[in-house]
Amino acid sequence: MNVTQLIAEIKAKRSYLCVGLDTDISKLPDGISKDVDGMLAFNKEIIDATKDYAVAYKINTAFYEQLGSKGWQALEKTREMLPTNVLSIADAKRGDIGNTSTMYAKAFFETMDFDALTVAPYMGFDSVEPFLKFENKITIVLGLTSNKGSHDFQTNKIYSPPLYKTVLERVAKWGNPENLMFVIGATKAEALKEIREIVPNHFLLIPGVGAQGGSAVEVCKNGVNEMGGLLINSSRGIIYASGEKDFAKVAREKAKELAEETQTYTLHL
Amino acid sequence: MNVTQLIAEIKAKRSYLCVGLDTDISKLPDGISKDVDGMLAFNKEIIDATKDYAVAYKINTAFYEQLGSKGWQALEKTREMLPTNVLSIADAKRGDIGNTSTMYAKAFFETMDFDALTVAPYMGFDSVEPFLKFENKITIVLGLTSNKGSHDFQTNKIYSPPLYKTVLERVAKWGNPENLMFVIGATKAEALKEIREIVPNHFLLIPGVGAQGGSAVEVCKNGVNEMGGLLINSSRGIIYASGEKDFAKVAREKAKELAEETQTYTLHL
Repeated sequence: MNVTQLIAEIKAKRSYLCVGLDTDISKLPDGISKDVDGMLAFNKEIIDATKDYAVAYKINTAFYEQLGSKGWQALEKTREMLPTNVLSIADAKRGDIGNTSTMYAKAFFETMDFDALTVAPYMGFDSVEPFLKFENKITIVLGLTSNKGSHDFQTNKIYSPPLYKTVLERVAKWGNPENLMFVIGATKAEALKEIREIVPNHFLLIPGVGAQGGSAVEVCKNGVNEMGGLLINSSRGIIYASGEKDFAKVAREKAKELAEETQTYTLHL
Repeated sequence: MNVTQLIAEIKAKRSYLCVGLDTDISKLPDGISKDVDGMLAFNKEIIDATKDYAVAYKINTAFYEQLGSKGWQALEKTREMLPTNVLSIADAKRGDIGNTSTMYAKAFFETMDFDALTVAPYMGFDSVEPFLKFENKITIVLGLTSNKGSHDFQTNKIYSPPLYKTVLERVAKWGNPENLMFVIGATKAEALKEIREIVPNHFLLIPGVGAQGGSAVEVCKNGVNEMGGLLINSSRGIIYASGEKDFAKVAREKAKELAEETQTYTLHL
């Protein structure tokens, strides 16, 4: 899926929802085995239950790697489960020197055929460019993250402009809105107006709604653009909304709720 | 292996050498099959050939991930091949919000039992701390990297002090020389004196010797401390020194050469 198709999907579903598959086997609901098979069965039910409302799915690689090579197999199988009309995102936060970044790009864009991958910016141009070189793929670079630790470097007041603005300004020049997006935490909704001055046309992947305390409506108020330009992620708030046997039904309700919450902000598309 | 044991090993072998297992199946020598089995056979021969001179091995996860879950199996098997008297490093450059970093830490420190893992600092304290919480494990945080892109953010002149110094200063307070090291590129040997003022006691993992152009002797001149404090990595310069059937023999010679080059700087231990 590319950005044009993503915008069409947002318009069709009237939704900015990205569902995060941070599947922790220790948190699987009653009745689901606490192993890789259970993880896959759970993911399948969650995807089926939420796909009418989600325009993207974000698979958090850490939760799969924790289980070793069997977990990596589950990552591959979960990727294969995703419908073709959603953006498939590997949330892996990779990044290294050029030849190594190329290997990571091959792993996620070719071997597993993800549409998009999150990338850390610390190592600069030659660590990000190898990802951008892959055609019809999207690199999502960390801008301003949703966690408290973002104050340590990204918004550390000893630097003016703050580091995250320098990252956005510089990285935006390395790609275009077709092959590059940014991660901006929902907990920083007040910063979104300024961020839109720097990157008016790029899509922003917004984690931090729900469990981390961000508001989807505030995000839309400050962050929506002509193309929509937003992917609002919820992981724990959807997939663990119920720890009981009705987990899929409740996940569907939560997905519907989150999509409807921001529906007004899709009507201009 | 812990830091005390690492220092003993440096003293016993008179070597700071870390061998980087960036095993690219397309570059495997003649006579070795260009697949996962060939990768493992190659790694086994390289490890056997170099272990008299290496005090650490650094496995670059990208080269294994590129091959999907079979590659991840090869990563696990390569980890198991490493002798117990070397520091096992996963060069994975992970880092995410707290609960996700904990999952990455489990993946590398528990599931695969690596001694050490490289971590990216961009997301700050709560992305690094989960790794530091694992007992008898070592977190190696990116400081100043060896690639050209380090100029984009790490040493960007719009910031004073440069970002990498702020990272070193701040991160050093989160751990101690027993559970925390830093990545400092060999191509920045001239910066090592200043870096040692900030982190006098931590071990530094130094990539960039050889293929990337850094000098091991310059690194030692400026970077050695009372505990030794250095791990000098060479990947391509050793493992692909010969593309022929004699690759293991030549790798052993190159490893010996690199170890001997800096031997003088181990004599105070």
